[in-house]
Amino acid sequence: MSNDTDVKQDKKAKYDRIRPVKWENYTLHLLDQRILPKEYKFIKYQRCKDVADAITNMVVRGAPAIGITAAYAIVISAKNHYMIRPSDWKEAIQDDLRYLAASRPTAVNLFWAIDKMKAIIDSIEGDPVSVLLAAADQILADDIAANKAMGDFGADLIAENAGILTHCNAGALATGGYGTALGVIRSAFIQGKVAQVYADETRPWMQGARLTAWELLHDEIPVILQSDSVAAHLMQQGKIDWVIVGSDRIAANGDVANKIGTYALAVLAKYHNVKFMVVAPTSTIDMSIVRGSEIPIEQRPSSEVTSVADSPVAPKGVSAINPAFDVTPASLIDAIVTEKGVVPTPTSEKIADLMAS
Amino acid sequence: MSNDTDVKQDKKAKYDRIRPVKWENYTLHLLDQRILPKEYKFIKYQRCKDVADAITNMVVRGAPAIGITAAYAIVISAKNHYMIRPSDWKEAIQDDLRYLAASRPTAVNLFWAIDKMKAIIDSIEGDPVSVLLAAADQILADDIAANKAMGDFGADLIAENAGILTHCNAGALATGGYGTALGVIRSAFIQGKVAQVYADETRPWMQGARLTAWELLHDEIPVILQSDSVAAHLMQQGKIDWVIVGSDRIAANGDVANKIGTYALAVLAKYHNVKFMVVAPTSTIDMSIVRGSEIPIEQRPSSEVTSVADSPVAPKGVSAINPAFDVTPASLIDAIVTEKGVVPTPTSEKIADLMAS
Repeated sequence: MSNDTDVKQDKKAKYDRIRPVKWENYTLHLLDQRILPKEYKFIKYQRCKDVADAITNMVVRGAPAIGITAAYAIVISAKNHYMIRPSDWKEAIQDDLRYLAASRPTAVNLFWAIDKMKAIIDSIEGDPVSVLLAAADQILADDIAANKAMGDFGADLIAENAGILTHCNAGALATGGYGTALGVIRSAFIQGKVAQVYADETRPWMQGARLTAWELLHDEIPVILQSDSVAAHLMQQGKIDWVIVGSDRIAANGDVANKIGTYALAVLAKYHNVKFMVVAPTSTIDMSIVRGSEIPIEQRPSSEVTSVADSPVAPKGVSAINPAFDVTPASLIDAIVTEKGVVPTPTSEKIADLMAS
Repeated sequence: MSNDTDVKQDKKAKYDRIRPVKWENYTLHLLDQRILPKEYKFIKYQRCKDVADAITNMVVRGAPAIGITAAYAIVISAKNHYMIRPSDWKEAIQDDLRYLAASRPTAVNLFWAIDKMKAIIDSIEGDPVSVLLAAADQILADDIAANKAMGDFGADLIAENAGILTHCNAGALATGGYGTALGVIRSAFIQGKVAQVYADETRPWMQGARLTAWELLHDEIPVILQSDSVAAHLMQQGKIDWVIVGSDRIAANGDVANKIGTYALAVLAKYHNVKFMVVAPTSTIDMSIVRGSEIPIEQRPSSEVTSVADSPVAPKGVSAINPAFDVTPASLIDAIVTEKGVVPTPTSEKIADLMAS
């Protein structure tokens, strides 16, 4: 029989297993999140533009995972171009970098990772591969460490017997591993505080049904799935204590861009006196953006809404709007949880203090 | 060249074409709404229990259409049993009536129609078919007339250049014809007041994507489709003036049961200062129910959420909650529009006055 400490160690080990982005045998491996949970399959990449297309097409998704993937894409680009043009590879990779930066517009972690890698490139002399690979590995390792730190910070805010609603997938699959919103849920579950997780299915991509439900089942954390429009009904019935979500970009004033539907949940949470937590590493905070209304919102194809599982649901000739994200004003947020600590009821001043700390 | 009046007459004629429930050649025909818009196909019914199953399985749906269908189901039951047992057919149909009443729990129009037909049955002597058929035909005709009256009452509340959001399908397909919420939209469109209709796709059954988009395209009313979680974002951008929905049951105090997601829209509308209109005939008002919390909410199968278009989206072993309806308190409603007139900011007193008028 194992004692409590052993059980906790076992649980912690278990929650470490999901890794959507891997570098093995000089090759980037991305878990194809479009076909989960039906199939669990990695795709190998050896060209930077193919990785950028994988980001656009959502083979990999989730702001931190996109950033990590971009870092490895730059390793690939440098490796390929240095091999052919060792004298001017820095010039040769520029086209790849531009293409990579255009893969998705909203998640700032993409640009953060590209900028971080560019700064290292500036100082490299000779073969860049080992230096850049070490940098990408560090971004990945830092992300997982940040998630675990956020998990503990966020779990501290949660009382016993909590009903938690989450939207989209801000889990191990959206990050290097462990997760942002789901990292907090994992840590709170280890602490015995989680009564029930309610996962929004999250149309149109169904990240909640396909990915969050899969992650939580994997970890044996109690999860119930529901259509997105059920959330208000659950709050009305008093079943939700916390809404916990991730973020794709946070403005300097604490406004949060996240998966479409997040803003509705924040308004509904405020109305029902339910707490609202955003969990994101500081790499998601974009100090160059003053307020949320300045964050570019990606508009995705109409066909993602008019078809489900490759089968048309809407009549021919109808068009759909498909904004991938929305913006939640800071005034509706109870806490932004980062790896540097918690920002309660965020303001420009508090965010500036956090970033300077 | 036609003049304005002709154009309006043409439009009105066009908007009269969709009829989900038809009685032809002594047979009930139901338009199979599960396969729209891919296929436009009527199913014929000659047994009452088959009609009840069609209601349960949502071949026909929408509170008024369910009521009309139930009336015709009783014609069928009486016809079949009178043929075999002319002396005690009234006793013989009781099993059918019970089965029919159990087909769906929330839409009160079902029970209203059954009660109405029962009262007629009590007074019948001899062959019941022609009397009951005339009664069912009258329920259908009254419903269409009520929808057109509500269309005009509701359209009067709407200003020029309106952005209107609707949820689920409260159209011709949900009624005898013309529609409740979509009836108001049709009438407002004829009056030139509708700039844009935004149709929530309405998970899990996708009535918005499949049925509302189809109806509005049919009538050439400008419609854009979106995932349910986009509504708050549209309101935040100032694109919505009115949310207009139908209802499955209205309590004596004005609380409204309607398709899951309606309550969220009402809270979001209040927050964004958007007007909220419920359109339903007085047969939807249940004076025996004091408040909305007493309305039975149908829980439908988990599989409707975990699968989409017969294809599983969620991992095996995850369960979903699938309440078909939610309850919107009267305090969030700007107007209930009935065929007897408009009830602004509904209260028990105003509803009682309406029902007594």
